[in-house]
Amino acid sequence: MRPKIVLFGDSITEESFGDGGWGASLAHHFARTVDVVLRGYSGYNTRWALHVAERVFPAATEAEGGGGREAPLAVAVFFGANDASLSDRSSAFQHVPLEEYKQNLHSIVSFIKKRWPTTFVLLITPPPIDEDGRLKHPYGDNPSGLPERTNEAAGAYAKACVEVAGECGLPVIDLWSRMQQLPGWEKACLRDGLHLTPVGNKIVFEEVVESLRQGGLNLESLPVDLPLLVDIDPHVPLKSFQH
Amino acid sequence: MRPKIVLFGDSITEESFGDGGWGASLAHHFARTVDVVLRGYSGYNTRWALHVAERVFPAATEAEGGGGREAPLAVAVFFGANDASLSDRSSAFQHVPLEEYKQNLHSIVSFIKKRWPTTFVLLITPPPIDEDGRLKHPYGDNPSGLPERTNEAAGAYAKACVEVAGECGLPVIDLWSRMQQLPGWEKACLRDGLHLTPVGNKIVFEEVVESLRQGGLNLESLPVDLPLLVDIDPHVPLKSFQH
Repeated sequence: MRPKIVLFGDSITEESFGDGGWGASLAHHFARTVDVVLRGYSGYNTRWALHVAERVFPAATEAEGGGGREAPLAVAVFFGANDASLSDRSSAFQHVPLEEYKQNLHSIVSFIKKRWPTTFVLLITPPPIDEDGRLKHPYGDNPSGLPERTNEAAGAYAKACVEVAGECGLPVIDLWSRMQQLPGWEKACLRDGLHLTPVGNKIVFEEVVESLRQGGLNLESLPVDLPLLVDIDPHVPLKSFQH
Repeated sequence: MRPKIVLFGDSITEESFGDGGWGASLAHHFARTVDVVLRGYSGYNTRWALHVAERVFPAATEAEGGGGREAPLAVAVFFGANDASLSDRSSAFQHVPLEEYKQNLHSIVSFIKKRWPTTFVLLITPPPIDEDGRLKHPYGDNPSGLPERTNEAAGAYAKACVEVAGECGLPVIDLWSRMQQLPGWEKACLRDGLHLTPVGNKIVFEEVVESLRQGGLNLESLPVDLPLLVDIDPHVPLKSFQH
Protein backbone atom coordinates (compact mmCIF):
# COMPACT_ATOMS: atom_id res chain seq x y z
CA MET A 1 0.00 0.00 0.00
CA ARG A 2 1.16 3.47 -0.83
CA PRO A 3 1.71 5.62 2.29
CA LYS A 4 -0.55 8.57 3.04
CA ILE A 5 -0.17 12.16 4.12
CA VAL A 6 -3.40 13.50 5.60
CA LEU A 7 -4.22 17.21 5.49
CA PHE A 8 -6.55 17.93 8.41
CA GLY A 9 -7.79 21.50 8.59
CA ASP A 10 -10.44 24.08 7.83
CA SER A 11 -11.43 25.83 4.59
CA ILE A 12 -7.82 26.73 3.79
CA THR A 13 -7.28 22.97 3.62
CA GLU A 14 -10.63 22.09 2.04
CA GLU A 15 -9.94 24.37 -0.92
CA SER A 16 -6.30 23.32 -1.23
CA PHE A 17 -6.97 21.22 -4.35
CA GLY A 18 -8.25 24.22 -6.29
CA ASP A 19 -6.11 25.79 -9.02
CA GLY A 20 -2.56 26.14 -7.76
CA GLY A 21 -3.62 24.94 -4.30
CA TRP A 22 -1.04 23.71 -1.82
CA GLY A 23 -2.74 20.32 -1.39
CA ALA A 24 -2.82 19.63 -5.12
CA SER A 25 0.80 20.74 -5.36
CA LEU A 26 1.73 18.24 -2.66
CA ALA A 27 -0.14 15.46 -4.47
CA HIS A 28 1.66 16.44 -7.68
CA HIS A 29 5.02 16.53 -5.92
CA PHE A 30 4.50 13.07 -4.39
CA ALA A 31 2.62 11.68 -7.42
CA ARG A 32 4.53 8.40 -7.48
CA THR A 33 5.24 7.94 -3.79
CA VAL A 34 2.48 9.12 -1.44
CA ASP A 35 -1.29 9.59 -1.43
CA VAL A 36 -2.22 13.04 -0.21
CA VAL A 37 -5.56 12.71 1.56
CA LEU A 38 -7.80 15.74 1.90
CA ARG A 39 -9.63 16.19 5.20
CA GLY A 40 -10.48 19.87 5.07
CA TYR A 41 -13.65 21.10 6.76
CA SER A 42 -14.68 24.62 5.91
CA GLY A 43 -15.57 26.73 8.92
CA TYR A 44 -14.41 24.20 11.51
CA ASN A 45 -12.52 25.22 14.60
CA THR A 46 -10.49 22.95 16.92
CA ARG A 47 -13.52 22.30 19.14
CA TRP A 48 -15.45 20.84 16.25
CA ALA A 49 -12.36 19.13 14.81
CA LEU A 50 -11.70 17.38 18.10
CA HIS A 51 -15.34 16.34 18.26
CA VAL A 52 -15.15 14.62 14.86
CA ALA A 53 -11.56 13.31 15.05
CA GLU A 54 -12.75 9.74 15.57
CA ARG A 55 -14.76 9.93 12.34
CA VAL A 56 -12.03 11.70 10.37
CA PHE A 57 -9.48 9.06 11.42
CA PRO A 58 -11.64 5.94 11.83
CA ALA A 59 -10.38 2.93 13.73
CA ALA A 60 -10.32 -0.33 11.83
CA THR A 61 -13.40 -2.54 12.12
CA GLU A 62 -13.30 -5.97 13.75
CA ALA A 63 -13.25 -7.56 10.30
CA GLU A 64 -10.09 -5.67 9.55
CA GLY A 65 -8.36 -7.09 12.58
CA GLY A 66 -9.07 -4.27 15.00
CA GLY A 67 -6.55 -1.65 16.02
CA GLY A 68 -6.00 1.46 13.98
CA ARG A 69 -6.01 1.50 10.23
CA GLU A 70 -2.61 1.67 8.62
CA ALA A 71 -0.68 4.59 10.09
CA PRO A 72 -0.42 7.65 7.86
CA LEU A 73 3.12 8.67 7.10
CA ALA A 74 2.22 12.20 8.19
CA VAL A 75 -0.69 14.34 9.30
CA ALA A 76 -0.73 18.11 8.92
CA VAL A 77 -2.98 19.78 11.51
CA PHE A 78 -3.95 23.23 10.30
CA PHE A 79 -6.57 24.93 12.48
CA GLY A 80 -6.90 28.26 14.19
CA ALA A 81 -8.23 30.69 11.60
CA ASN A 82 -11.79 30.06 12.79
CA ASP A 83 -10.95 29.73 16.47
CA ALA A 84 -9.48 33.23 16.20
CA SER A 85 -12.75 34.78 15.01
CA LEU A 86 -13.57 37.49 17.54
CA SER A 87 -16.13 36.51 20.16
CA ASP A 88 -18.20 39.66 19.75
CA ARG A 89 -18.35 39.95 15.99
CA SER A 90 -20.13 38.36 13.05
CA SER A 91 -18.36 34.97 13.16
CA ALA A 92 -18.60 34.63 16.94
CA PHE A 93 -20.12 31.15 16.73
CA GLN A 94 -16.79 29.86 15.38
CA HIS A 95 -14.74 31.48 18.13
CA VAL A 96 -12.84 29.28 20.56
CA PRO A 97 -11.06 30.89 23.55
CA LEU A 98 -7.29 30.91 23.28
CA GLU A 99 -6.67 28.54 26.19
CA GLU A 100 -9.23 26.05 24.88
CA TYR A 101 -7.62 26.29 21.42
CA LYS A 102 -4.31 25.24 22.94
CA GLN A 103 -5.93 22.42 24.86
CA ASN A 104 -7.84 21.23 21.79
CA LEU A 105 -4.67 21.20 19.69
CA HIS A 106 -2.98 19.14 22.41
CA SER A 107 -5.92 16.73 22.41
CA ILE A 108 -5.93 16.39 18.60
CA VAL A 109 -2.21 15.66 18.62
CA SER A 110 -2.63 13.14 21.46
CA PHE A 111 -5.45 11.43 19.60
CA ILE A 112 -3.33 10.99 16.47
CA LYS A 113 -0.20 10.00 18.36
CA LYS A 114 -2.04 7.47 20.51
CA ARG A 115 -3.49 5.82 17.43
CA TRP A 116 -0.32 6.00 15.36
CA PRO A 117 2.79 6.66 17.50
CA THR A 118 5.15 6.75 14.50
CA THR A 119 3.17 9.19 12.37
CA PHE A 120 4.90 12.49 11.63
CA VAL A 121 2.55 15.18 12.97
CA LEU A 122 3.06 18.71 11.74
CA LEU A 123 1.25 21.80 13.03
CA ILE A 124 0.50 24.83 10.86
CA THR A 125 -0.51 28.12 12.44
CA PRO A 126 -3.34 30.24 11.04
CA PRO A 127 -2.21 32.72 8.37
CA PRO A 128 -2.17 36.45 9.03
CA ILE A 129 -5.37 38.41 8.43
CA ASP A 130 -5.77 41.33 6.04
CA GLU A 131 -8.57 43.19 7.78
CA ASP A 132 -9.23 45.38 4.75
CA GLY A 133 -9.73 42.21 2.70
CA ARG A 134 -12.12 40.81 5.28
CA LEU A 135 -14.28 43.93 5.14
CA LYS A 136 -14.33 43.88 1.34
CA HIS A 137 -15.29 40.18 1.21
CA PRO A 138 -17.60 39.58 4.17
CA TYR A 139 -19.27 36.21 4.71
CA GLY A 140 -22.94 37.07 4.72
CA ASP A 141 -24.13 40.16 6.53
CA ASN A 142 -21.67 42.21 8.52
CA PRO A 143 -23.34 45.56 9.08
CA SER A 144 -20.98 46.45 11.95
CA GLY A 145 -18.27 47.69 9.62
CA LEU A 146 -15.76 45.83 11.78
CA PRO A 147 -13.81 42.78 10.54
CA GLU A 148 -14.83 39.48 12.17
CA ARG A 149 -11.16 38.53 12.36
CA THR A 150 -8.11 40.68 13.14
CA ASN A 151 -4.46 40.12 12.45
CA GLU A 152 -3.64 40.66 16.12
CA ALA A 153 -6.01 37.88 17.21
CA ALA A 154 -4.71 35.52 14.51
CA GLY A 155 -1.20 36.27 15.77
CA ALA A 156 -2.12 35.27 19.33
CA TYR A 157 -3.49 31.93 18.07
CA ALA A 158 -0.44 31.42 15.86
CA LYS A 159 1.81 32.01 18.89
CA ALA A 160 -0.25 29.52 20.90
CA CYS A 161 0.06 26.95 18.10
CA VAL A 162 3.83 27.38 18.09
CA GLU A 163 3.83 26.90 21.87
CA VAL A 164 1.80 23.68 21.60
CA ALA A 165 4.24 22.36 19.00
CA GLY A 166 7.10 23.11 21.39
CA GLU A 167 5.33 21.43 24.30
CA CYS A 168 4.66 18.33 22.14
CA GLY A 169 8.07 18.30 20.47
CA LEU A 170 6.49 18.67 17.05
CA PRO A 171 7.51 20.67 14.00
CA VAL A 172 5.43 23.74 13.23
CA ILE A 173 5.04 26.11 10.32
CA ASP A 174 4.50 29.61 11.67
CA LEU A 175 2.54 30.80 8.67
CA TRP A 176 1.45 33.98 10.41
CA SER A 177 5.06 35.14 10.74
CA ARG A 178 6.29 33.62 7.48
CA MET A 179 3.77 35.37 5.26
CA GLN A 180 4.29 38.74 6.88
CA GLN A 181 7.94 38.63 5.79
CA LEU A 182 6.69 39.26 2.27
CA PRO A 183 6.22 42.97 1.43
CA GLY A 184 2.58 43.54 0.50
CA TRP A 185 1.62 40.18 2.04
CA GLU A 186 -1.94 41.42 2.62
CA LYS A 187 -2.88 41.20 -1.06
CA ALA A 188 0.00 39.03 -2.29
CA CYS A 189 -0.81 36.07 -0.04
CA LEU A 190 -4.50 36.50 0.77
CA ARG A 191 -7.41 36.54 -1.67
CA ASP A 192 -10.09 37.82 0.69
CA GLY A 193 -8.07 38.70 3.73
CA LEU A 194 -8.01 35.06 4.91
CA HIS A 195 -7.88 32.50 2.08
CA LEU A 196 -4.82 31.99 -0.06
CA THR A 197 -3.76 33.40 -3.40
CA PRO A 198 -1.45 31.36 -5.66
CA VAL A 199 1.49 33.05 -3.92
CA GLY A 200 0.11 32.15 -0.50
CA ASN A 201 -0.51 28.59 -1.63
CA LYS A 202 3.04 28.33 -2.91
CA ILE A 203 4.41 29.41 0.46
CA VAL A 204 2.37 26.77 2.30
CA PHE A 205 3.38 24.09 -0.22
CA GLU A 206 7.07 24.93 0.06
CA GLU A 207 6.98 25.11 3.84
CA VAL A 208 5.21 21.75 4.12
CA VAL A 209 7.67 20.10 1.73
CA GLU A 210 10.56 21.53 3.76
CA SER A 211 9.07 20.42 7.06
CA LEU A 212 8.48 16.91 5.73
CA ARG A 213 12.05 16.88 4.40
CA GLN A 214 13.41 17.78 7.83
CA GLY A 215 11.37 14.86 9.15
CA GLY A 216 13.09 12.56 6.65
CA LEU A 217 10.15 12.41 4.26
CA ASN A 218 11.18 13.46 0.77
CA LEU A 219 11.40 12.18 -2.78
CA GLU A 220 14.90 10.88 -2.16
CA SER A 221 13.93 8.77 0.86
CA LEU A 222 10.45 7.58 -0.13
CA PRO A 223 10.27 4.55 -2.41
CA VAL A 224 8.59 4.88 -5.79
CA ASP A 225 5.80 2.31 -6.06
CA LEU A 226 6.62 1.11 -9.57
CA PRO A 227 9.53 1.71 -11.95
CA LEU A 228 9.97 5.18 -13.39
CA LEU A 229 10.15 5.42 -17.17
CA VAL A 230 13.83 6.38 -16.99
CA ASP A 231 14.54 3.14 -15.13
CA ILE A 232 12.80 0.93 -17.67
CA ASP A 233 15.14 -0.82 -20.10
CA PRO A 234 13.72 -0.02 -23.56
CA HIS A 235 15.06 -3.33 -24.88
CA VAL A 236 13.37 -5.53 -22.25
CA PRO A 237 10.76 -3.32 -20.55
CA LEU A 238 8.91 -6.09 -18.69
CA LYS A 239 12.13 -7.12 -16.95
CA SER A 240 11.92 -3.86 -14.96
CA PHE A 241 8.71 -5.02 -13.27
CA GLN A 242 10.08 -8.27 -11.87
CA HIS A 243 11.19 -6.92 -8.50
CA MET B 1 -14.48 5.32 5.32
CA ARG B 2 -14.74 7.85 2.54
CA PRO B 3 -15.21 6.25 -0.89
CA LYS B 4 -12.47 6.43 -3.51
CA ILE B 5 -12.21 7.22 -7.19
CA VAL B 6 -8.97 5.84 -8.65
CA LEU B 7 -7.35 7.44 -11.69
CA PHE B 8 -5.31 4.74 -13.44
CA GLY B 9 -3.39 5.90 -16.46
CA ASP B 10 -0.17 7.19 -17.99
CA SER B 11 1.58 10.57 -17.82
CA ILE B 12 -1.63 12.43 -18.66
CA THR B 13 -2.92 11.00 -15.40
CA GLU B 14 0.34 11.26 -13.44
CA GLU B 15 0.53 14.99 -14.06
CA SER B 16 -3.18 15.57 -13.47
CA PHE B 17 -2.59 17.17 -10.06
CA GLY B 18 -0.44 19.94 -11.55
CA ASP B 19 -1.84 23.46 -11.86
CA GLY B 20 -5.36 23.29 -13.23
CA GLY B 21 -5.03 19.54 -13.73
CA TRP B 22 -8.11 17.39 -14.20
CA GLY B 23 -7.25 15.11 -11.26
CA ALA B 24 -6.84 18.00 -8.84
CA SER B 25 -10.08 19.51 -10.15
CA LEU B 26 -11.87 16.24 -9.41
CA ALA B 27 -10.41 16.15 -5.90
CA HIS B 28 -11.54 19.75 -5.41
CA HIS B 29 -15.00 19.00 -6.78
CA PHE B 30 -15.44 16.00 -4.45
CA ALA B 31 -13.52 17.58 -1.54
CA ARG B 32 -16.06 16.55 1.10
CA THR B 33 -17.34 13.32 -0.39
CA VAL B 34 -14.72 11.23 -2.20
CA ASP B 35 -10.96 10.62 -2.13
CA VAL B 36 -9.47 10.92 -5.59
CA VAL B 37 -6.53 8.51 -5.72
CA LEU B 38 -3.75 9.10 -8.22
CA ARG B 39 -2.31 6.06 -9.96
CA GLY B 40 -0.68 7.65 -12.99
CA TYR B 41 2.45 6.06 -14.47
CA SER B 42 4.32 8.18 -16.97
CA GLY B 43 5.24 6.32 -20.15
CA TYR B 44 3.23 3.20 -19.35
CA ASN B 45 1.22 1.39 -21.99
CA THR B 46 -1.52 -1.21 -21.39
CA ARG B 47 0.98 -4.08 -21.52
CA TRP B 48 2.91 -2.65 -18.59
CA ALA B 49 -0.27 -1.51 -16.83
CA LEU B 50 -1.70 -5.02 -16.98
CA HIS B 51 1.57 -6.40 -15.71
CA VAL B 52 1.44 -4.20 -12.58
CA ALA B 53 -2.33 -4.18 -12.00
CA GLU B 54 -2.01 -6.51 -9.02
CA ARG B 55 0.38 -4.06 -7.37
CA VAL B 56 -1.63 -0.96 -8.29
CA PHE B 57 -4.80 -2.52 -6.84
CA PRO B 58 -3.45 -4.75 -4.06
CA ALA B 59 -5.59 -7.46 -2.55
CA ALA B 60 -6.14 -7.34 1.18
CA THR B 61 -3.70 -9.25 3.34
CA GLU B 62 -4.75 -12.22 5.48
CA ALA B 63 -4.74 -9.96 8.53
CA GLU B 64 -7.28 -7.75 6.84
CA GLY B 65 -9.68 -10.63 6.33
CA GLY B 66 -8.65 -11.61 2.81
CA GLY B 67 -10.63 -10.70 -0.27
CA GLY B 68 -10.18 -7.41 -2.02
CA ARG B 69 -9.66 -4.16 -0.21
CA GLU B 70 -12.69 -1.96 0.01
CA ALA B 71 -14.14 -1.49 -3.47
CA PRO B 72 -13.42 1.88 -5.06
CA LEU B 73 -16.52 3.78 -6.04
CA ALA B 74 -15.04 4.22 -9.50
CA VAL B 75 -11.89 3.61 -11.52
CA ALA B 76 -10.99 5.63 -14.59
CA VAL B 77 -8.78 3.65 -17.00
CA PHE B 78 -6.93 6.06 -19.26
CA PHE B 79 -4.30 4.38 -21.46
CA GLY B 80 -3.49 4.32 -25.13
CA ALA B 81 -1.36 7.38 -25.82
CA ASN B 82 1.80 5.29 -25.39
CA ASP B 83 0.44 2.13 -26.99
CA ALA B 84 -0.19 4.26 -30.09
CA SER B 85 3.47 5.29 -30.43
CA LEU B 86 4.52 4.15 -33.88
CA SER B 87 6.45 0.89 -33.99
CA ASP B 88 9.20 2.23 -36.24
CA ARG B 89 9.89 5.60 -34.66
CA SER B 90 11.64 7.04 -31.62
CA SER B 91 9.19 5.77 -28.96
CA ALA B 92 8.85 2.30 -30.47
CA PHE B 93 9.60 0.59 -27.16
CA GLN B 94 6.29 1.89 -25.82
CA HIS B 95 4.28 0.70 -28.83
CA VAL B 96 1.65 -2.01 -28.34
CA PRO B 97 -0.10 -3.49 -31.40
CA LEU B 98 -3.71 -2.44 -31.78
CA GLU B 99 -5.20 -5.89 -31.21
CA GLU B 100 -3.10 -6.42 -28.11
CA TYR B 101 -4.15 -2.97 -26.84
CA LYS B 102 -7.79 -4.05 -27.09
CA GLN B 103 -7.08 -7.35 -25.37
CA ASN B 104 -5.09 -5.63 -22.62
CA LEU B 105 -7.89 -3.15 -21.97
CA HIS B 106 -10.31 -6.07 -21.72
CA SER B 107 -7.99 -7.78 -19.26
CA ILE B 108 -7.57 -4.66 -17.13
CA VAL B 109 -11.33 -4.19 -16.98
CA SER B 110 -11.84 -7.87 -16.13
CA PHE B 111 -9.24 -7.66 -13.38
CA ILE B 112 -10.98 -4.68 -11.76
CA LYS B 113 -14.48 -6.10 -12.24
CA LYS B 114 -13.51 -9.50 -10.85
CA ARG B 115 -12.08 -7.89 -7.75
CA TRP B 116 -14.84 -5.34 -7.31
CA PRO B 117 -17.98 -6.21 -9.30
CA THR B 118 -19.89 -3.09 -8.23
CA THR B 119 -17.15 -0.56 -9.04
CA PHE B 120 -18.01 1.96 -11.77
CA VAL B 121 -15.31 1.52 -14.43
CA LEU B 122 -14.88 4.29 -16.96
CA LEU B 123 -12.63 4.17 -20.02
CA ILE B 124 -10.97 7.24 -21.50
CA THR B 125 -9.48 7.15 -25.00
CA PRO B 126 -6.12 8.72 -25.77
CA PRO B 127 -6.32 12.37 -26.77
CA PRO B 128 -5.66 13.51 -30.33
CA ILE B 129 -2.06 14.23 -31.32
CA ASP B 130 -0.74 17.51 -32.66
CA GLU B 131 2.17 16.26 -34.75
CA ASP B 132 3.65 19.73 -35.07
CA GLY B 133 3.70 19.97 -31.28
CA ARG B 134 5.39 16.58 -31.01
CA LEU B 135 8.17 17.66 -33.38
CA LYS B 136 8.70 20.91 -31.48
CA HIS B 137 8.84 19.14 -28.10
CA PRO B 138 10.56 15.80 -28.71
CA TYR B 139 11.40 13.47 -25.82
CA GLY B 140 15.12 13.04 -26.12
CA ASP B 141 16.75 12.65 -29.51
CA ASN B 142 14.54 12.38 -32.55
CA PRO B 143 16.82 13.05 -35.53
CA SER B 144 14.35 11.47 -37.98
CA GLY B 145 12.29 14.63 -38.28
CA LEU B 146 9.18 12.44 -38.01
CA PRO B 147 6.80 12.54 -35.05
CA GLU B 148 6.86 9.43 -32.84
CA ARG B 149 3.07 9.64 -32.58
CA THR B 150 0.50 10.59 -35.22
CA ASN B 151 -3.09 11.72 -34.87
CA GLU B 152 -4.23 8.97 -37.21
CA ALA B 153 -2.68 6.25 -35.04
CA ALA B 154 -4.09 7.81 -31.87
CA GLY B 155 -7.49 7.79 -33.57
CA ALA B 156 -7.26 4.07 -34.30
CA TYR B 157 -6.49 3.37 -30.63
CA ALA B 158 -9.28 5.69 -29.51
CA LYS B 159 -11.72 3.82 -31.77
CA ALA B 160 -10.51 0.52 -30.32
CA CYS B 161 -11.01 1.85 -26.79
CA VAL B 162 -14.58 2.86 -27.64
CA GLU B 163 -15.15 -0.63 -29.04
CA VAL B 164 -13.85 -2.28 -25.87
CA ALA B 165 -16.17 -0.10 -23.79
CA GLY B 166 -19.06 -1.23 -25.98
CA GLU B 167 -18.09 -4.87 -25.69
CA CYS B 168 -17.84 -4.56 -21.89
CA GLY B 169 -20.93 -2.40 -21.50
CA LEU B 170 -18.90 0.40 -19.93
CA PRO B 171 -19.07 4.17 -20.32
CA VAL B 172 -16.29 5.77 -22.33
CA ILE B 173 -15.02 9.27 -22.93
CA ASP B 174 -13.91 9.57 -26.54
CA LEU B 175 -11.38 12.27 -25.88
CA TRP B 176 -9.86 11.97 -29.34
CA SER B 177 -13.15 13.00 -30.96
CA ARG B 178 -14.26 15.39 -28.23
CA MET B 179 -11.15 17.55 -28.34
CA GLN B 180 -11.14 17.79 -32.11
CA GLN B 181 -14.56 19.46 -31.97
CA LEU B 182 -12.76 22.52 -30.64
CA PRO B 183 -11.40 24.83 -33.39
CA GLY B 184 -7.62 25.13 -32.96
CA TRP B 185 -7.64 22.07 -30.66
CA GLU B 186 -4.00 21.36 -31.56
CA LYS B 187 -2.66 24.24 -29.48
CA ALA B 188 -5.75 24.94 -27.38
CA CYS B 189 -5.89 21.48 -25.79
CA LEU B 190 -2.34 20.19 -26.09
CA ARG B 191 0.80 21.68 -24.56
CA ASP B 192 3.37 19.65 -26.45
CA GLY B 193 1.22 17.84 -28.96
CA LEU B 194 0.23 15.19 -26.40
CA HIS B 195 -0.09 16.50 -22.83
CA LEU B 196 -2.89 18.79 -21.74
CA THR B 197 -3.18 22.55 -21.47
CA PRO B 198 -5.57 24.08 -18.90
CA VAL B 199 -8.27 23.98 -21.60
CA GLY B 200 -7.57 20.31 -22.30
CA ASN B 201 -7.59 19.55 -18.58
CA LYS B 202 -10.93 21.30 -18.19
CA ILE B 203 -12.44 19.16 -20.94
CA VAL B 204 -11.27 15.95 -19.27
CA PHE B 205 -12.51 17.13 -15.87
CA GLU B 206 -15.94 18.06 -17.20
CA GLU B 207 -16.29 14.85 -19.19
CA VAL B 208 -15.33 12.71 -16.19
CA VAL B 209 -17.77 14.57 -13.91
CA GLU B 210 -20.52 14.08 -16.50
CA SER B 211 -19.74 10.40 -16.96
CA LEU B 212 -19.77 9.83 -13.19
CA ARG B 213 -23.04 11.74 -12.99
CA GLN B 214 -24.60 9.48 -15.59
CA GLY B 215 -23.43 6.57 -13.44
CA GLY B 216 -25.27 8.04 -10.47
CA LEU B 217 -22.15 9.44 -8.80
CA ASN B 218 -22.49 13.14 -8.15
CA LEU B 219 -22.53 15.69 -5.36
CA GLU B 220 -26.28 15.31 -4.97
CA SER B 221 -26.17 11.54 -4.49
CA LEU B 222 -22.94 11.11 -2.52
CA PRO B 223 -23.12 11.68 1.22
CA VAL B 224 -20.99 14.38 2.79
CA ASP B 225 -18.80 12.87 5.51
CA LEU B 226 -19.40 15.54 8.14
CA PRO B 227 -21.79 18.50 8.42
CA LEU B 228 -21.27 21.40 6.05
CA LEU B 229 -20.92 24.82 7.65
CA VAL B 230 -24.31 25.90 6.26
CA ASP B 231 -25.92 22.97 8.09
CA ILE B 232 -24.38 23.80 11.45
CA ASP B 233 -26.70 25.63 13.84
CA PRO B 234 -24.69 28.67 15.00
CA HIS B 235 -26.52 28.61 18.33
CA VAL B 236 -25.70 24.97 19.18
CA PRO B 237 -22.94 23.94 16.78
CA LEU B 238 -21.99 20.68 18.51
CA LYS B 239 -25.54 19.39 18.15
CA SER B 240 -24.91 19.09 14.40
CA PHE B 241 -22.27 16.42 14.99
CA GLN B 242 -24.47 14.05 16.97
CA HIS B 243 -25.70 11.98 14.03
